[in-house]
Amino acid sequence: MTPKNPAFVDRVHKLFAVTPFMSDLGVVVAAVAPGVCETTLELQPRHLQQNGFVHAGVAAAMADHTAGGAAGTLVAEDEGVLTTEYSVHFLRAAKGDRLLCRATVLKPGTTLTVVEAEVFCGEVLVSKMTATMAIVRGVPY
Amino acid sequence: MTPKNPAFVDRVHKLFAVTPFMSDLGVVVAAVAPGVCETTLELQPRHLQQNGFVHAGVAAAMADHTAGGAAGTLVAEDEGVLTTEYSVHFLRAAKGDRLLCRATVLKPGTTLTVVEAEVFCGEVLVSKMTATMAIVRGVPY
Amino acid sequence: MTPKNPAFVDRVHKLFAVTPFMSDLGVVVAAVAPGVCETTLELQPRHLQQNGFVHAGVAAAMADHTAGGAAGTLVAEDEGVLTTEYSVHFLRAAKGDRLLCRATVLKPGTTLTVVEAEVFCGEVLVSKMTATMAIVRGVPY
Amino acid sequence: MTPKNPAFVDRVHKLFAVTPFMSDLGVVVAAVAPGVCETTLELQPRHLQQNGFVHAGVAAAMADHTAGGAAGTLVAEDEGVLTTEYSVHFLRAAKGDRLLCRATVLKPGTTLTVVEAEVFCGEVLVSKMTATMAIVRGVPY
Repeated sequence: MTPKNPAFVDRVHKLFAVTPFMSDLGVVVAAVAPGVCETTLELQPRHLQQNGFVHAGVAAAMADHTAGGAAGTLVAEDEGVLTTEYSVHFLRAAKGDRLLCRATVLKPGTTLTVVEAEVFCGEVLVSKMTATMAIVRGVPY
Repeated sequence: MTPKNPAFVDRVHKLFAVTPFMSDLGVVVAAVAPGVCETTLELQPRHLQQNGFVHAGVAAAMADHTAGGAAGTLVAEDEGVLTTEYSVHFLRAAKGDRLLCRATVLKPGTTLTVVEAEVFCGEVLVSKMTATMAIVRGVPY
Repeated sequence: MTPKNPAFVDRVHKLFAVTPFMSDLGVVVAAVAPGVCETTLELQPRHLQQNGFVHAGVAAAMADHTAGGAAGTLVAEDEGVLTTEYSVHFLRAAKGDRLLCRATVLKPGTTLTVVEAEVFCGEVLVSKMTATMAIVRGVPY
Repeated sequence: MTPKNPAFVDRVHKLFAVTPFMSDLGVVVAAVAPGVCETTLELQPRHLQQNGFVHAGVAAAMADHTAGGAAGTLVAEDEGVLTTEYSVHFLRAAKGDRLLCRATVLKPGTTLTVVEAEVFCGEVLVSKMTATMAIVRGVPY
């Protein structure tokens, strides 16, 4: 998988920095490589369910945007990525201090890219998503 | 679809009130009926994508919890609901002042309940989710 | 939803007639309208699970192709449709003489179309699918 | 992942042998290990799409049943597995002589098990499924 944009690392960092909902949640980029994006999130009480576990919506939003970051490593400078759908399975309850998400492009494409994203709480795999990203021309983010 | 718990309306209201992430997002219960839950969310800048549209993660988190509310109308007093998976399709960009989510039980069950949730921005259907909820005994929320 | 191809009814009939796997299963077109396709399948022992119920794979293949038929009612003469993904929930066991599938376009598009397909056994809704169809130029079927 | 049934290999072979739709398609068990099932299918004209590629419904039915086989390696003698839902992404067109499917349990459970299944045509990964299997007591297949 070869990035079309040599500045793909900066671009993915910017994709998170300019997104209010990611800043609001507190999701931070940890690593970027061709077809790969990793993020972390320091958990706070507001991220939780009524039972003290991380809300599924927090893990899913993080996984979705990190999947977009992984797809975003491969697109051209004038292209953007847009989630068209995803399926997510919640495998285990998430309780801890921090989430880590690792998203990897499963199938790159010129119009559609399929990405998998795993969310870990500590060493535990808590959820796994498969997402379809549309590659949109003329919309750089 | 007949609720096992006569206090099901109060219970669904409480399900949102006690969940920090729903309070943090600003999701509010608008209507509750057997097998049905409706919620609204007044949009703020922090809910947005980099392009000014509502972040998919906001719509998905709202739909997921509202689906849980719909499933929660049918369970017994000592039972809780837990999302095991969902699939969501993002149909149109969401731009506006408010989201409305309507979740309806498609198939009630004693161990698994399948729920559909539609999210509207104004009159526009922006996303649709199908979720599986596990019915868990001894965990009332 | 307005068909671009005035011969859309013939085209959907042909889409089933020329597909060996649909003929092999025995899926037959019952009705076609803009954005809608209905099919039926007379059940035979070879369509079953070990327990006498219809195999999920039969219902899913029927729903997938019928969803393609619904999307196919809206495309131009030189365009084809291709399933990129679907999610399907199996709601109830299917036992009976015949399956009926009704697929409806949820969101038409120029590059992607989202379709819902419901499968009934008698009066019972046994499964529901949401599928993404890519619209491919220069590939009429 | 430890099988509860020491005869799990025989059991998975039987799960395919007694299922009319799997015999009808021609799906054959190639390997069985705890949490893992592999199958193959020699392609025939009846398995195809109108364009000569393998019909998505063939790959999905094979993946679904092979996922059931993987879950079936872990259950007790008096338990059966039942697909409640799956999501499948079709990554590349499948053209060739043979499909191979490899299913692996992602998260074993006492009531629900999540399984991933990959389908290859030659060396090419053509589709990937994530399925939820319900563990049903008193229904050995």
